[in-house]
Amino acid sequence: MNDSFFSRHEQTLNGALNAIRTRGYWSPFNEMPSPRAYGETAAAEGESAFKAHIGRPFELDQPGSGTVGEERSPFGFALNISYPKAEPDALIAAAQKAQTHYRKAGPKAWIGVSLEIVARLNRASFEIAHSVMHTTGQAFMMAFQAGGPHAQDRALEAIAYAWDAMRDVPETAYWEKPQGKNPPLAMEKRFTIVPRGIGLVIGCCTFPTWNSYPGLFADLATGNGVIVKPHPAAILPLAITVRIARQVLEEAGFDPNVVTLLATAPNDGALVQSLATRDEIRLIDFTGSTANGDWLETHARQAQVYTEKAGVNQIVIDSADELKPMVRNIAFSLALYSGQMCTAPQNIYVPREGIKTSEGTISFDDVAQAFADAVQKLTADPAKAVELTGAIQNKGVLERIEQVSAYGAPLLDSVTLQHPTYPEAKVSTPILRKLDAGRDEPIFTQEWFGPIAFVIATDSTGQSLELAGRIARTRGALTLSVYSTDEQTLDAASEAAVIGGVALSINLTGGVFVNQSSAFSDFHATGANPAANASLSDAAFVANRFRVVQSRRHVPQRDPA
Amino acid sequence: MNDSFFSRHEQTLNGALNAIRTRGYWSPFNEMPSPRAYGETAAAEGESAFKAHIGRPFELDQPGSGTVGEERSPFGFALNISYPKAEPDALIAAAQKAQTHYRKAGPKAWIGVSLEIVARLNRASFEIAHSVMHTTGQAFMMAFQAGGPHAQDRALEAIAYAWDAMRDVPETAYWEKPQGKNPPLAMEKRFTIVPRGIGLVIGCCTFPTWNSYPGLFADLATGNGVIVKPHPAAILPLAITVRIARQVLEEAGFDPNVVTLLATAPNDGALVQSLATRDEIRLIDFTGSTANGDWLETHARQAQVYTEKAGVNQIVIDSADELKPMVRNIAFSLALYSGQMCTAPQNIYVPREGIKTSEGTISFDDVAQAFADAVQKLTADPAKAVELTGAIQNKGVLERIEQVSAYGAPLLDSVTLQHPTYPEAKVSTPILRKLDAGRDEPIFTQEWFGPIAFVIATDSTGQSLELAGRIARTRGALTLSVYSTDEQTLDAASEAAVIGGVALSINLTGGVFVNQSSAFSDFHATGANPAANASLSDAAFVANRFRVVQSRRHVPQRDPA
Repeated sequence: MNDSFFSRHEQTLNGALNAIRTRGYWSPFNEMPSPRAYGETAAAEGESAFKAHIGRPFELDQPGSGTVGEERSPFGFALNISYPKAEPDALIAAAQKAQTHYRKAGPKAWIGVSLEIVARLNRASFEIAHSVMHTTGQAFMMAFQAGGPHAQDRALEAIAYAWDAMRDVPETAYWEKPQGKNPPLAMEKRFTIVPRGIGLVIGCCTFPTWNSYPGLFADLATGNGVIVKPHPAAILPLAITVRIARQVLEEAGFDPNVVTLLATAPNDGALVQSLATRDEIRLIDFTGSTANGDWLETHARQAQVYTEKAGVNQIVIDSADELKPMVRNIAFSLALYSGQMCTAPQNIYVPREGIKTSEGTISFDDVAQAFADAVQKLTADPAKAVELTGAIQNKGVLERIEQVSAYGAPLLDSVTLQHPTYPEAKVSTPILRKLDAGRDEPIFTQEWFGPIAFVIATDSTGQSLELAGRIARTRGALTLSVYSTDEQTLDAASEAAVIGGVALSINLTGGVFVNQSSAFSDFHATGANPAANASLSDAAFVANRFRVVQSRRHVPQRDPA
Repeated sequence: MNDSFFSRHEQTLNGALNAIRTRGYWSPFNEMPSPRAYGETAAAEGESAFKAHIGRPFELDQPGSGTVGEERSPFGFALNISYPKAEPDALIAAAQKAQTHYRKAGPKAWIGVSLEIVARLNRASFEIAHSVMHTTGQAFMMAFQAGGPHAQDRALEAIAYAWDAMRDVPETAYWEKPQGKNPPLAMEKRFTIVPRGIGLVIGCCTFPTWNSYPGLFADLATGNGVIVKPHPAAILPLAITVRIARQVLEEAGFDPNVVTLLATAPNDGALVQSLATRDEIRLIDFTGSTANGDWLETHARQAQVYTEKAGVNQIVIDSADELKPMVRNIAFSLALYSGQMCTAPQNIYVPREGIKTSEGTISFDDVAQAFADAVQKLTADPAKAVELTGAIQNKGVLERIEQVSAYGAPLLDSVTLQHPTYPEAKVSTPILRKLDAGRDEPIFTQEWFGPIAFVIATDSTGQSLELAGRIARTRGALTLSVYSTDEQTLDAASEAAVIGGVALSINLTGGVFVNQSSAFSDFHATGANPAANASLSDAAFVANRFRVVQSRRHVPQRDPA
């Protein structure tokens, strides 16, 4: 049974293994919500499945009593879904009980179960898309892609790395050491992959599946039990995920409590801290604020802790062939999901002397104004705009928009748009402020999460790159973007990226945006600056989730065959 | 130049890569100090080279002023070697300066330099052997093998894992994403391996090379600079190592300050703590006490910290074909280097009802007495005994021998032997005490480092295995050994080993001893119990020593070739 899931998906696994080595474009999941890919009825059925959750108890047959849940759609209505409430003690006990059998099943069973779960998540992509949309505020298309197939890609990527790491350890070895004229010493050795124990996966409210799947599947694929703790504002996508995981576990003959859900009410900090420091929790994957991530790294010393926290993403503009394609590309990145992406750019450095283009030198003010115009144009028609910006996830973002207008000089104000379908949705277009590198560093070295960006006048591209490298290194960053027609400047940008430990995008003017990272090809985060202590995904992300315990005994010398 | 070192040793590297996958017996270095392997003059030259160090300044052209060094041979004389004294600040500054060029040279250069250093260390095996002998107290043969070729094996193993991890990341990738009827998006991506920064390697006084080489070479092979901080009592072997490393670096065109030596006087705790918590130190490899290791894990939060600390190694005796070969094997393990090995057994569990053998049931007391007799026999002739026990490294060990005689019932007293060559050497044979599992747990759950072992009466093999698993899990352990003729009991022992996260040896009665671990085949430590948070070596040991920084830019679509 266990191995049959493995064989069923072996070809997909091999595709993923090839992809993580070659890092070209690859995905087994279609990113278009099309009937051809997902079936004629998938869209309607997925939407109905989502709607059926609203105002109802979410059934999960796991230990606990009572219910919890206060999610509201950022598009302006309460979900009124009640999830089973669980005591951390009960989930830990259940996971420990479930995990012994799961542990003994071994790598092929873990990988098979993990791959089957991902395959079923793919079939639930529409249901998950609506759930992601109405918890995060993402527009539907992004909710489908990032919450569905792209998140599944990241899950599969983590599974592939896990398998790759585990298969490198042979199950047995024959060891024969010559002893001169005496008979050799001969031993058989056995190597057992032993999972760490129980993993805790702590989700965020903007990308509940995309950011949680790598840790969840890296844990499961290496034999660990997992407690999934969604953000209180974005429970549903992970509740659906956990339910599917439990179904697959049960079908494979395992106790479904290998994976459980810890749904919580808002302000669950104390509960999470007490759970995260329990001795039984040996792995933690966290996406969220720097304060919470740092707390976990400092206090959850019994666990391997993988965090993704705040950062300051930056764009260095030195020169360009043409202004327009560059500005259009960046404006899209600023407006996409109202900048509520950990990869969204915030600081745009432009030399105060202006930039060279094939159309001549363009002044700082003209470059800044071009951004304002491009963003305004992108968001002018509310019906089109909301499909790009989605809605604002939480009040904190709105407060920051308010707060930032005290700094620097105005460039573009944020506008509240009326959503054509959801009148109660909170929709805000980006605010742009002009800052000065010499004067305003305390402002732009902070993360202003949301539709907030700064066009910052610098003395030179040299200063821009120095700032970019230093701020990435000291404050964290997931993305850095550079525009230049000069190869030497691009080399200097690469060196700034290395110093800052941040992924670099060069001269993006077409259909690729700096906030997008492509699974199997782009590493998301580097683990080399404060924005994250790990990368999604690489060998380091999985290698510490299991250990190897060996045994050895003498055996008769084998004939050399 | 850099690549020429790589090509020179590529065959050795490939051998190592094959060995870590198949984990059979393999080594490129001869473990016998024979003229055939090392040349007719090597032994004499190595000894002269060692003697030339005594009473002299050790030249190392690195930043610093003044000298330091108070080593004494455990065989009873002062070495009077004065090492250059260095300020941590100066070494950090020098490493940072040196590291920029080294970092840019890339993986092949790092691996080539590392392999060449190891090759030269092999040629210095006799000089290093005498240095290890006269700092650790190991007898010559062990000092040669463990301090020379076996340590070099562990270095090469770490280098192989590092190369294996780095070569999995392609330098470039072509990414082409279909866009339906539009032309595809096409990008070229570059992936740069970026070292963490500066590593700090903290050596111990019993295995200065064997325990330090994995961290040192894992760091160097992944492009990091390294500050080597030997134990104040065992500087010389690492000083020789650092000198050779610096020569190779210089020949390869690098600033030799990529590797520096921080020699210290005894009681260097405050100095090490202040260095270990410096922001520039990004990797720490430590072997030593649990107190110091825990301090580093807790406080050096800016660094990846790899520790090997104290543990309680155990032997479970259930049954045996014959008593004698078992007892002889264990007695050897107890006497070898006077139990001053992190892998030496301490607790021997024997059912109080006795054990079954082909010669009938043997009572607990008779089994215990057999150990006493075997150890006594092994150590009866001082001239032979000292070649096995070596000398006692430090006063703490002698104090523990004294202290332990207050516990349990006497079985064998420790005897002070007169060394035939070194009259001032401190030589002590093992002390054995009888304990009871029910009464004496507070005594035998501590590590008694040195020639100290307990034969412990248990209610049953079941209790022995429960103790073994639990003590390994909670107190740490590097080795667990079991003797049984019953396969079900061996299965239960395997489960205890998994629970304890400890390597298991089964029915060792011949020429393999539980304290020995064979590079490329045996993982030393698991990282799954408190004795160590990492394993020597596996993928996890190297994967976090570097990060990947990528860049991406659009390129014209390539013809599908």
